[in-house]
Amino acid sequence: MIPASLEKLVESFRLLPGVGAKSAERYALSMLDASLEDVEEFAKALLDVKTKIKTCPVCGNLTEEDKCSICSDSSRDHHTICVVQSMKDIIAMEKTNEYKGVYHVLQGLISTTKGILPEDLNIKSLLERLNDETKEIILATNATMEGETTALYLDKILSGKGVLVTRIAYGLPMGGHLDYADELTLIKAIEGRKKI
Amino acid sequence: MIPASLEKLVESFRLLPGVGAKSAERYALSMLDASLEDVEEFAKALLDVKTKIKTCPVCGNLTEEDKCSICSDSSRDHHTICVVQSMKDIIAMEKTNEYKGVYHVLQGLISTTKGILPEDLNIKSLLERLNDETKEIILATNATMEGETTALYLDKILSGKGVLVTRIAYGLPMGGHLDYADELTLIKAIEGRKKI
Repeated sequence: MIPASLEKLVESFRLLPGVGAKSAERYALSMLDASLEDVEEFAKALLDVKTKIKTCPVCGNLTEEDKCSICSDSSRDHHTICVVQSMKDIIAMEKTNEYKGVYHVLQGLISTTKGILPEDLNIKSLLERLNDETKEIILATNATMEGETTALYLDKILSGKGVLVTRIAYGLPMGGHLDYADELTLIKAIEGRKKI
Repeated sequence: MIPASLEKLVESFRLLPGVGAKSAERYALSMLDASLEDVEEFAKALLDVKTKIKTCPVCGNLTEEDKCSICSDSSRDHHTICVVQSMKDIIAMEKTNEYKGVYHVLQGLISTTKGILPEDLNIKSLLERLNDETKEIILATNATMEGETTALYLDKILSGKGVLVTRIAYGLPMGGHLDYADELTLIKAIEGRKKI
């Protein structure tokens, strides 16, 4: 009953994370109302992303060039490396306009349940890029079981390399209410208290 | 910071209804993990939908052929025409496996707020397809202000044409949209239809 090409487009939209049958149908039908130009650009963007994007050999970030825009930016502080799980985390960090160092993208986190081991992550290139100039490595993985495990592992293999290894702070999120915070967060917030 | 081609793909995903910056970013990044084959099929499906799909000249439904699959199905009851807003409603109706007649797709509803007038809708072809064989026209527009207005308008212009005009029962919850209703509600709505 649905034209075959529309049915195929619905199937393609269902590949997207968290998109069910109803949303996929809605997305596909919306393409009929979109301008031909927009849809052609959409199709081109899909193909471009697959053909043009590669990972930066230095940090593992996504790039279309030989080196990513952050690694090739000489105005940034190349002595400080912030280790994150994925490119999404870089986007979040950059939105703060606060961090001026460079990044290292692990492309995942150590997970026993998902069977992701340290050797599956982009860790080897982190050790390779360390040199006498490297002053600090900030471990900015998620405050979850997997993020903690990965941070602990990295701390262990980085010890003795003569570089300062730090972990981002835990505590109450800004705007958060004390009575809504979970116990572990509160314990961490008290442990991490600072003189005002 | 984000590669240009990824940025463009995020923009394209933002064209989809109800998709904000965060979801668009997530969708675009998920394409990097998808297989090249899947992404190529996605791009092809987008273009196919724009180039292959046209509206059925009889009922206004979407089709890739000269006539839509329902209009060209001789096993269906062509004496009964169910008038709906869009193709999404046909999909919903067909899922009930209850209705055996044909459809007429208005491609919208009369709306004073959106400035949609009767002449903007696919109504002329409805009047043209009426003949001595037509026994009943079921008005199956949404149970919303716009759907009701459209149903009343159609009832008015169809009166005196010697055809029975019915409205689906108000088993449909008020304010609800046809394409979100569950199948039983739709079956009840068809069974409980009344002469206006």
